Amino acid sequence: MYGWNYILRVNLSNGRIYKEEIKKELALNFIGGRGINVKLLYDEVRPGIDPLGPDNKLILGVSPLTGILPGFTRFNATAKSPLTGILGDSNAGGQWAAEFRFAGYNHIVIEGASEKPVYIWIHDDHVEIRDAAYLWGKNVWETTELIREELGDEEIKVVAIGQAGENLVKYACLIADFARAAGRCGLGAVAGSKKLKAIAVRGTKGVKIAHPDQFEELWERWYECIKSINMGGLDYNIYGTPAITVPMHNGGFYPVKNFQSTQLTEEELENVSGETFVERYVVKSKACFPCLVHCAHYYRVAEGPYAGTAGEGLEFETINCFGPRCGNTYLPAILLANNLVNQYGLDVVETGAAIALAMHLYQEGLLDEEKTGGLKLEWGDHEVIIELIHLIAKREGIGNILAEGVVNIGKYIKGAEKYVIHSKGLSPVAWDCRAAKGVALGFATSTRGCDHLRGLWSISGYKAKLTEGLPDPSGLIPLKGKILIPNEYASEEKSRANIFLQHICAIRDMVEICTMHFASSWLQPPWPKDIAEALTIVTGVKFDEKDLFVCAERLWNLERAFNVREGITRKDDTFSPRYFEEPVPDGPYKGEVLHKEKFDEMLDKYYELRGWDVETGIPTRRKLEELGLKYVADELENLGKLPQ
Amino acid sequence: MYGWNYILRVNLSNGRIYKEEIKKELALNFIGGRGINVKLLYDEVRPGIDPLGPDNKLILGVSPLTGILPGFTRFNATAKSPLTGILGDSNAGGQWAAEFRFAGYNHIVIEGASEKPVYIWIHDDHVEIRDAAYLWGKNVWETTELIREELGDEEIKVVAIGQAGENLVKYACLIADFARAAGRCGLGAVAGSKKLKAIAVRGTKGVKIAHPDQFEELWERWYECIKSINMGGLDYNIYGTPAITVPMHNGGFYPVKNFQSTQLTEEELENVSGETFVERYVVKSKACFPCLVHCAHYYRVAEGPYAGTAGEGLEFETINCFGPRCGNTYLPAILLANNLVNQYGLDVVETGAAIALAMHLYQEGLLDEEKTGGLKLEWGDHEVIIELIHLIAKREGIGNILAEGVVNIGKYIKGAEKYVIHSKGLSPVAWDCRAAKGVALGFATSTRGCDHLRGLWSISGYKAKLTEGLPDPSGLIPLKGKILIPNEYASEEKSRANIFLQHICAIRDMVEICTMHFASSWLQPPWPKDIAEALTIVTGVKFDEKDLFVCAERLWNLERAFNVREGITRKDDTFSPRYFEEPVPDGPYKGEVLHKEKFDEMLDKYYELRGWDVETGIPTRRKLEELGLKYVADELENLGKLPQ
Repeated sequence: MYGWNYILRVNLSNGRIYKEEIKKELALNFIGGRGINVKLLYDEVRPGIDPLGPDNKLILGVSPLTGILPGFTRFNATAKSPLTGILGDSNAGGQWAAEFRFAGYNHIVIEGASEKPVYIWIHDDHVEIRDAAYLWGKNVWETTELIREELGDEEIKVVAIGQAGENLVKYACLIADFARAAGRCGLGAVAGSKKLKAIAVRGTKGVKIAHPDQFEELWERWYECIKSINMGGLDYNIYGTPAITVPMHNGGFYPVKNFQSTQLTEEELENVSGETFVERYVVKSKACFPCLVHCAHYYRVAEGPYAGTAGEGLEFETINCFGPRCGNTYLPAILLANNLVNQYGLDVVETGAAIALAMHLYQEGLLDEEKTGGLKLEWGDHEVIIELIHLIAKREGIGNILAEGVVNIGKYIKGAEKYVIHSKGLSPVAWDCRAAKGVALGFATSTRGCDHLRGLWSISGYKAKLTEGLPDPSGLIPLKGKILIPNEYASEEKSRANIFLQHICAIRDMVEICTMHFASSWLQPPWPKDIAEALTIVTGVKFDEKDLFVCAERLWNLERAFNVREGITRKDDTFSPRYFEEPVPDGPYKGEVLHKEKFDEMLDKYYELRGWDVETGIPTRRKLEELGLKYVADELENLGKLPQ
Repeated sequence: MYGWNYILRVNLSNGRIYKEEIKKELALNFIGGRGINVKLLYDEVRPGIDPLGPDNKLILGVSPLTGILPGFTRFNATAKSPLTGILGDSNAGGQWAAEFRFAGYNHIVIEGASEKPVYIWIHDDHVEIRDAAYLWGKNVWETTELIREELGDEEIKVVAIGQAGENLVKYACLIADFARAAGRCGLGAVAGSKKLKAIAVRGTKGVKIAHPDQFEELWERWYECIKSINMGGLDYNIYGTPAITVPMHNGGFYPVKNFQSTQLTEEELENVSGETFVERYVVKSKACFPCLVHCAHYYRVAEGPYAGTAGEGLEFETINCFGPRCGNTYLPAILLANNLVNQYGLDVVETGAAIALAMHLYQEGLLDEEKTGGLKLEWGDHEVIIELIHLIAKREGIGNILAEGVVNIGKYIKGAEKYVIHSKGLSPVAWDCRAAKGVALGFATSTRGCDHLRGLWSISGYKAKLTEGLPDPSGLIPLKGKILIPNEYASEEKSRANIFLQHICAIRDMVEICTMHFASSWLQPPWPKDIAEALTIVTGVKFDEKDLFVCAERLWNLERAFNVREGITRKDDTFSPRYFEEPVPDGPYKGEVLHKEKFDEMLDKYYELRGWDVETGIPTRRKLEELGLKYVADELENLGKLPQ
């Protein structure tokens, strides 16, 4: 089949390596990337297993469009999460995805566990498991360089774990190409538990296209389309995601000091703005392959205590997590922190959440210098922030507790769970759901835990006309300087919009296009029909917009079923208590909380619209069968989990 | 390693075939046969899957002692059962096990499902998946002959399914060597769902032994030991298991007319006795390889309506199932029925239970001629019994309902479940537990459903001194003419004996020795220490008696955990209501029922002695960890199923 090549399987327990064809049924029902990854995980990993044991599988995947059209830059990584115990899934840009595809594969499934450190070397048809003893203990950057040196090819693309993954930090991540993180859900710890240090790839094969005669024109259309993207007036190609720091803050949604405030002074805000970042520290822009937006950056700190710090990246979330969330607005320290998490292989959000929580506990007296090994965890002390990153990655001192993730803090520090915010074990990104109440629904129903990228912003401020395929964009327009995120609870219409956006994000992740191009920009092209057209030309299989939405709904239901098998029900589609109990202390939404009753009403409506059982939040047999997932219904029924 | 060769894996979905070494840890902890089979199934098959879907695996296995010492004749077949939805496990003798081992393998794992009928051909290192289109629709005997003809070798040993397996009769079985059934739990339907018609084997390799210098003497000792076995005065080498028909009847435990009676007239009993069978119909004896007991028979009917019927086998259970359980005592009809179930590949016990139930329903007016297609299901009408076997195997008419198994009858015939006796979906063998109350505990806690071979007779009538390794045999002696099975409820001592016997049976099935030699004869050698010695000499790994019992307890707990994952708890360790509500109508135990309260007391004690949670009947973390099954405890905990 055009578009779909092989699934590569590498078993680290017994060294078996083989490839298998992607069957048509799998391809057409799950397309690629996150879609096929989740299907393989669901089918091959039994519920209840230890995510850090050999029974877990780590699956990376790209799509039929990867590497051949602007914006299709990403790979998905999927496994059972050691942090949350449910679906673990994350994706990353960079160059690795395209290189992997050019080697002739769409997915790699890593099974079992090695006894000694290894890395996987893929050079087109040549695949081998190589000794990584000399890499163990090295950080991601060193590892990447050493592998290129060992194999004598500077063009090799590497996905690696750092010391955090080796040390099984529960939110260790995979880093591709030095600075592109498949960050969430602890997939780096899964690699670490398998003693898998890296996957190095060199791909020199071409990609066969079903309709080459139409492809050049497609490419040009796509190029023009991506070039024309205007992210609500925000210059992402100049600032990247840091562009939204100021509007998010001014909108009243920005977490400060572990959600104890939403407000910075004008000077503090300027210190951490995208503009300041670009003007003071950026050396030049950088893009993934193949992309033309160049939202990433090379940066360099010229003076002050962190002079000499040079690195790559920086996102809106990173600024918040090592900045205001910890009471810090000194940007050079945030840049150093960004380097450290890329080197150690740590998830930005969980690491920042853990440090902010530690500072909060210190403020409340639940942590003291005896427990921190002498560290004073004062808000905004950037030296302490840097030190805690080291301790977490190495699992030393207080870092050994923080490495377990904020969701587990109560096991180690009595009473500490009161200060945690999470949903299904994952920490929220820099959105305060007490303010953005419609967003709360999306976060709470996300299939990988608290998250904006699963239903995008799950924004409730427009009329979704799903029957006509696309929403009416009236009501929500991201504007320069302030993002209008209505703080209303989701009405039926808005719950429908939430589901629509969850499906938009699923489509995005099945074709592995960047959020920057597709799902963030559902107010402008490329539309789902453009994705369908591209798939049709590349694969030769006729896709239309409706096919994509059906695949998306199928995937969402399968992900939900994966979590249901692990014990998830309606009771878990919520947050830890703070959002419900502690009012927003300041800013435009001062005094507001999430009302449990109204939140529950949103959930009722959401399940109803999804065709799920409202009482349990579990997909019904009817819905599963409608999506071609009868075997899933049978399985849930056999387990006594299917609603009657 | 001596003793352990390869696990052969055949994936029928993608045609992949490969072998993998048996790791030392797997070998030493689970030994072989049922042990390693169950470990592979637990680790590789996720809970809740459709037993008749491609996610199920069919695993066959032998042991390090298979084929090289008298009595080690059997292979185990294991999968998730389509009849019960829990562990499906059954073993069979014949010649196949030894042949498979001589081909260089200990286990074969059949994964996925073929789209077209196939069979697997194993000739030492040569393994292939071959077209079986020409065999589909053929019975077991025809299939066996045709494969031998096609491959041109009369020495090929074949495990096959008949039409019942093709038609997914829920209790279709695997038949080895024409007449040796891995009968229970519907493993033939699992093969049928994979479109796997047969596994043909020719093995010409030798078996390497760790201490060849000690082996000849071992062989001689073992030969003498087996030769000296005296099964409580019963001549098994003459009569086979039919020897116990008369003593079981006279003891008051023998089911007649679907458990509506325990009594036959003297003439009826004589008609179906082992003595009558041998004197009137047996042509000569037959043994499995390598065995000297020759408990099986070739038989021939010379006159009457079934003249010309010739076949092989006949067991105590078969006589009951197609005889008195259905009100029939005409032995030639039973011999024909035995041939038919061997040809169609049907489990004797479930087939007999289904026919007896149908006759019972006819008696009660729940089935009439309209529903049976004109058949009058009168007790003892052997023509009707024969006709129903045909209908079940072909899933025609009323046979299509009976093919679902008695446990499912209520779905099709309202009110019918009242007349069913089962535990966890499996029908009882020819023991009435209202009479043999201590046996009830063993049947109800068996890990594959209602069954005597899992805890042997689970007899409660002696003092078990487990601390000293072996029971004091006082209290129970099988005597010629009458078996003394105390009808008391199990005391603590007897519950302990029950557990002891469950472990004896697990040892038996891990080394794949026949019940005839080992577990039936725990009152005389060979003892567990003799098994340990044989393992030590053959494998070069030091085993002692205690090792075997630890392995047995580990296996039992893993089997329980497999079932717990599928939803089994204490509530399932019981029987359908008849045993508790309907008194024994006649015979020595007339008027007695199983008392729910006393039964529950036995269960309490059983769980307590097993170190399980008494409330739920689920193994505790402590017990699982003690047995090296921490990962199982973790998994059950992740699923919310581990007792707190």
